[in-house]
Amino acid sequence: MAATRAYLDYNASAPLLPLARAAMLAALDSAANASSVHSEGRAARRIIEDARRNVAALVNGQAEHVVFTSGATEAATTLLTPEWQMGRARLRMGKVYVSAADHPCLLNGGRFGAERTAHVGVNADGILDLEALAAMLAAHDKAEGLPLVAIHAANNETGVVQPLEEIGRIVKEAGGVLVADAVQAAGRIPLDISAGYIDFLILSSHKIGGPQGAGAFVACSDLMMPKPLVVGGGQEKGFRAGTENLAAIAGFGAAAAQALEALAGVNEICDLRDEIEASVLSRAPDAEIFGRQAARLANTTFFAIPGIKSETAQIAFDLAGVALSAGSACSSGKVGPSHVLKAMGHENPEGALRVSVGLATTRAEVQQFTAALSSLLARRAGKPQAA
Amino acid sequence: MAATRAYLDYNASAPLLPLARAAMLAALDSAANASSVHSEGRAARRIIEDARRNVAALVNGQAEHVVFTSGATEAATTLLTPEWQMGRARLRMGKVYVSAADHPCLLNGGRFGAERTAHVGVNADGILDLEALAAMLAAHDKAEGLPLVAIHAANNETGVVQPLEEIGRIVKEAGGVLVADAVQAAGRIPLDISAGYIDFLILSSHKIGGPQGAGAFVACSDLMMPKPLVVGGGQEKGFRAGTENLAAIAGFGAAAAQALEALAGVNEICDLRDEIEASVLSRAPDAEIFGRQAARLANTTFFAIPGIKSETAQIAFDLAGVALSAGSACSSGKVGPSHVLKAMGHENPEGALRVSVGLATTRAEVQQFTAALSSLLARRAGKPQAA
Repeated sequence: MAATRAYLDYNASAPLLPLARAAMLAALDSAANASSVHSEGRAARRIIEDARRNVAALVNGQAEHVVFTSGATEAATTLLTPEWQMGRARLRMGKVYVSAADHPCLLNGGRFGAERTAHVGVNADGILDLEALAAMLAAHDKAEGLPLVAIHAANNETGVVQPLEEIGRIVKEAGGVLVADAVQAAGRIPLDISAGYIDFLILSSHKIGGPQGAGAFVACSDLMMPKPLVVGGGQEKGFRAGTENLAAIAGFGAAAAQALEALAGVNEICDLRDEIEASVLSRAPDAEIFGRQAARLANTTFFAIPGIKSETAQIAFDLAGVALSAGSACSSGKVGPSHVLKAMGHENPEGALRVSVGLATTRAEVQQFTAALSSLLARRAGKPQAA
Repeated sequence: MAATRAYLDYNASAPLLPLARAAMLAALDSAANASSVHSEGRAARRIIEDARRNVAALVNGQAEHVVFTSGATEAATTLLTPEWQMGRARLRMGKVYVSAADHPCLLNGGRFGAERTAHVGVNADGILDLEALAAMLAAHDKAEGLPLVAIHAANNETGVVQPLEEIGRIVKEAGGVLVADAVQAAGRIPLDISAGYIDFLILSSHKIGGPQGAGAFVACSDLMMPKPLVVGGGQEKGFRAGTENLAAIAGFGAAAAQALEALAGVNEICDLRDEIEASVLSRAPDAEIFGRQAARLANTTFFAIPGIKSETAQIAFDLAGVALSAGSACSSGKVGPSHVLKAMGHENPEGALRVSVGLATTRAEVQQFTAALSSLLARRAGKPQAA
C-alpha cells in the first residue's frame, strides 16, 4: 500500500476540520447533560445554542427553526411522514414525491412506505423532469392530504444541482410542501431558506467537515412541523427526544460557520476538480463524465471509462493510496449498479467512479490520483478491451 | 461561584472516561464513512466492530445482536413499536406495558401511542407490582398481538433495581416479550442477556462514561426484530440507517469495556454514596431517602429534606460548586414533581434531590457536597419551617 494517502471521497465523509475538532474537544471536556440546571448543564446548553445559530446562518435561516438530529438520514425519516401538525391541529400529507436519483433516505419514502411514494424522473443530465413533476402534482388527490415533495439540492454521486427555485414554484402552485436535501449542497453552493421556495432543508455535519453523528432539519417558519420520530423527552422543543450529542453538535456548528466562509473559495476547489477531469479525459478520451452538461457542485466528478470496472478500479486506486468511491457509500455492503445513473438513462454495467474533493484537498493528492489512473489505464491497454 | 466543582450528577451524564476520549480522538483522526470500501472506510468499519464486541460483552451478549443507535431514547423508540418481523414474516405487538416509574422514553409508549400503552404500578419502594403485571398480562387480548413489556432495570432517579428475572418469568409465561432499559444499570450491576429472561436490552454510552450520541439495543437472539425507526440505508444490517457515528461508537466501546471491569469496584462507589447518605441523615434526621428498603444501584441516592425546596436547593448547591439534580434531566426545561415519586405514592410538593456518583468521584467532592449541605441546612434553621 502507498505510504501517503490521497483522500478524494468528501461526498462520503469529509475529513474533520481542525476548528470542528477543537470545538468538539472543548465540548467533551465540559460534557454534561444540556438539560441539567447546574452550571455544567447550562454551559452545555450554550454550546448547543451557539451551534444552532451557526447552522441557521449557513442556510440564511432562523436559529429557532433548526432541529438537531443524529444525522441527515434521521432528519429525512422525520420529515418524510404523512403526519404533521400546525400548532395543535393535525395536518396530513397524502403522498411523497421524490426524485428517482435521490439518496435512499428520500428515495424509499421514509415513513410514507412504498405505496405512498412516487418517483419523479430525471433527464440524461440528472435534472428533475419538471413537467413530469407538475403533471404528477396536478393529478395528486388532495382528499388524501397535501403533496410533499422531497428532492436533493445536489446529487451525491454526480454533483448535479437541481433547479430548486423552479421546483419550489411548481410545488407551491400545487399547494405542496418542499423538502430539499442539502446534504451535499451545503457549503458548496449558497442556500437560502428565507427565499420562500423551500419549506425544509436537510443538513449533515460530516459532509461539511464536522463530525459524524449530527445533522439537522431547518424549517422556513414554525408554522408546521412533522410528527416527531424519536420520542420520549422534551429536547429540541419536543421535536426530537434524547440527550443532545453535545460534542458532535459543537463540531457541526463550527463546521457550518466555516462552510459558509468556504463558499468564497469554491473556485479553487473547482480548479482541482477540473484538473482531475482533464487528466481523465486526456488519458482516456473515451471516458464519460456524467451530468457534465448540467450545473454541478464544484467538488464532484462522476465518470466511467470503458473497459474499467469501477469496483476493481476502486481497489486498485486504494492500493495506490487513493481513496475514492464507486458510487455512494450509503448502503453498507450493498454492491450494485448506481440507481442515479439508471435514472439518467445510462446503461453502465461496468459502473462509475466518483472523485470528490474539498477544502483540504491538495494538488499533490490530485497528482497521486493522476499517477494511479495512468497505471490503471496502462494495465487496461495491455488487456483485451470490451467491445 | 466556587473555584472547584464537584460533579455529582452521573445519572444525567457521566464525565467522559480518559480511555473513551482517547478512542474517540483516534477515530476522529481516521474519520471516514464506515460503509466506504477504501482503506479509510475499512479502518472505520473495524473500529465499529471492535466497539460492538465490547458492548456485547458488557451484557454477556453476542456482537452480531448489537444494533447501534444515536442513544437510548432512539433505541427505546425503535423497540417500542407494534410492528415487528421474524425473518420475513410480520409479527404484531398489541400493547406495551411499562412501569409507572419508567423513564419518559418508555413511559410514553414510543411508537405505540398512548391508547396502546398500559402503566403498571410500583410499590412504595419503587419495585414493580408483579401481581398487577401478571394480572394485566393475563387480561391481554392476544388477538391484537403479543404483549410487549418494557421496564427499567434500575431507576434513573432512585437507583432502585427491578427484579428482572421474576419479571421475565411472568412475561414469558404470558407469551410476551421483555425489553429492559439498562441505561442506568449498565456498569453498575451485572447484566446477562444470555440468561434467557430478557429479550432486549437498551444501553446508553454517556451514562457509562462514553460520549453522548451513541446507544444501542441488544437482542438475545436474531429471531425477531422491531420495524426499523430510522430508514433509508443499509447500515446495521438494515435495522438502523444513517452513517455510523464512528467517534461516538468508538468511545462507547471503550467505555463499555471499562464499565465491565468497573463492576469489580462497585463497593468503593457504594462507600461514597453511603457516606453521602450518612451526612444527609446526620445533619437532617428528618430527611427521607427514597427506595432505601429496596435493592439499589450503589451510586445513587434520592432524598427529600422537609423545608428544603429541591429547585432552590439545587441552585444553592450549584453556587457552592456542587452539580446535582432535582430529579432527572430528561425533559429539557420541564419543571414539575417527579413522576417516579408520585408512582411510589409519595406526596412530595417540595421535590427531592438526586446525588449520583461514579468512577471518578473523589472523597473531596463528597466533602464539598457535605459542606454545601451544612450551609443550606443552617439557612433552613434560620427560617420558619414547614409544618
